[in-house]
Amino acid sequence: MPSNVILKEVGPRDGLQNESSIVSTEKKIAWIDKLVDAGLKYIEVTSFVSPKWIPALADADDVFRYLKRKQGVTYAALVPNARGLERALRADVDEVGIFISASDTHNRRNVNKSIEETLPVLKEVVRTAKEQGKTARGYLSTVFGCPYEGRVPVSQIEKISHELLEMGIDELSLGDTIGVANPKQVKQIVRQLKVTIPTGRMALHLHNTRGLALANIVAGLEENIQIFDGAAGGLGGCPYAQGATGNVATEDVQYLMQSLGIETGVDLKKLVEAAQFIAPHIGTDLPSYQLRLTDEEGDGA
Amino acid sequence: MPSNVILKEVGPRDGLQNESSIVSTEKKIAWIDKLVDAGLKYIEVTSFVSPKWIPALADADDVFRYLKRKQGVTYAALVPNARGLERALRADVDEVGIFISASDTHNRRNVNKSIEETLPVLKEVVRTAKEQGKTARGYLSTVFGCPYEGRVPVSQIEKISHELLEMGIDELSLGDTIGVANPKQVKQIVRQLKVTIPTGRMALHLHNTRGLALANIVAGLEENIQIFDGAAGGLGGCPYAQGATGNVATEDVQYLMQSLGIETGVDLKKLVEAAQFIAPHIGTDLPSYQLRLTDEEGDGA
Repeated sequence: MPSNVILKEVGPRDGLQNESSIVSTEKKIAWIDKLVDAGLKYIEVTSFVSPKWIPALADADDVFRYLKRKQGVTYAALVPNARGLERALRADVDEVGIFISASDTHNRRNVNKSIEETLPVLKEVVRTAKEQGKTARGYLSTVFGCPYEGRVPVSQIEKISHELLEMGIDELSLGDTIGVANPKQVKQIVRQLKVTIPTGRMALHLHNTRGLALANIVAGLEENIQIFDGAAGGLGGCPYAQGATGNVATEDVQYLMQSLGIETGVDLKKLVEAAQFIAPHIGTDLPSYQLRLTDEEGDGA
Repeated sequence: MPSNVILKEVGPRDGLQNESSIVSTEKKIAWIDKLVDAGLKYIEVTSFVSPKWIPALADADDVFRYLKRKQGVTYAALVPNARGLERALRADVDEVGIFISASDTHNRRNVNKSIEETLPVLKEVVRTAKEQGKTARGYLSTVFGCPYEGRVPVSQIEKISHELLEMGIDELSLGDTIGVANPKQVKQIVRQLKVTIPTGRMALHLHNTRGLALANIVAGLEENIQIFDGAAGGLGGCPYAQGATGNVATEDVQYLMQSLGIETGVDLKKLVEAAQFIAPHIGTDLPSYQLRLTDEEGDGA
């Protein structure tokens, strides 16, 4: 297992985009400041998609406008196309995130284009972003299973990963979009990918829908993965199901790393406080274990 | 990893004993029947402790009296002392469970005796139980951490484990009583114990307080542990904290095993139905992932 890993916070984007509550721009910025204060060096701040698609992130331009950046921290944003990139560049993001699914049906449902049709769009986004001195991160969704197609062949995952890397992305984030990965499969897929892709350029982006995200992270660590995405509080669940779990909670990942003696540079207590700060602005109970533990203690247990 | 494992259901005992709700004898029996119908071959039915200690299990004698037993299933009960054993033998339990803590302070708080004072009591219980043709299971608590003493030296865990095995227990269940185990530690402790104790005689009894139970089970599997305790629905949490997690949910363990291709003989759907049956009789939301997933689907997602 690696002795150091990097935790990347996707709560303000992947966490909020599925929540039915609208959090004010001011609150988002104060929350991001707290996440940074906890020691996180990477924040996916928002997404430059049409406000019609994701009303919760309609204030993307304003969040970047009023955000006070801390040196050494990467403030990233998701970008679906050239138009989104234009806004992202105007906002002077540090890193551009692009996304595509490993399964064609999911990709079509998500962006109304086949994988083949999406690749040239992304290529153009990455090319322009790099020209403007930005780094780029590629999110590959449904790597561990697709709601429409089930398991995706590893050869297909490999093929698209290489297409993205050849475009010039700096890092590939492998997404378990619907939370169906298991530790054996994580090892199999990473083992196959790392034959041709350095582990230092791969991240795991896991959802905890079936309670296996932390077990899957351990599997990733055992294959020398060193970058893990998480969302404060475990944000990003289904908006209408009480306590439904979305992204793995960053503070639960941090607790795991601490218990394994792996350094992250992140302060667990401050991370929990950041989750506590945003929790009341979300309509449902958050599924984070560390958050619940702290709340119980606070209740006078 | 083993190709087959055994899931042992402790919900009716360890699950209910911490819940503030009192479930009727009739409901308990109907629930146990459903658990057996799902394919579980081991049910820890109740505990023969004083009703003053655990009012939720005050009907231990009646549960055994009215239970219709299915052949091939072990109906076990926890027994703290000679008096409890007398009741358990009158109830004709199949297996007697004894318990002791790996840390002295926890043992004193739990049974008001030191470890040294407890061992002779257990020895007598096991001796009499074996004379009466019963098998015996030893629960060792706080193996992975004690709320008062912190980490417990492995030499101490080893010493007490051997004392229990020498008494004649057939199986040793290693308990993470407060849910502080991590995968690295599980491997270290099991690796040490299996030098002198066959893995086939060890079980892992994990609580999911910090979300690591399934990751810890994977660690156990990798060390060839083949017996895992669980409680339907993840019962056994703190009675006053909404959604606080107790035992790992049996159906979440079953899902993990299925995803890894490990046989258990248990039907996941029926297991979830058994958890759904008992859920309304518990005062709080249950933390089981499989239960929540099914409930969401039922809500028309």
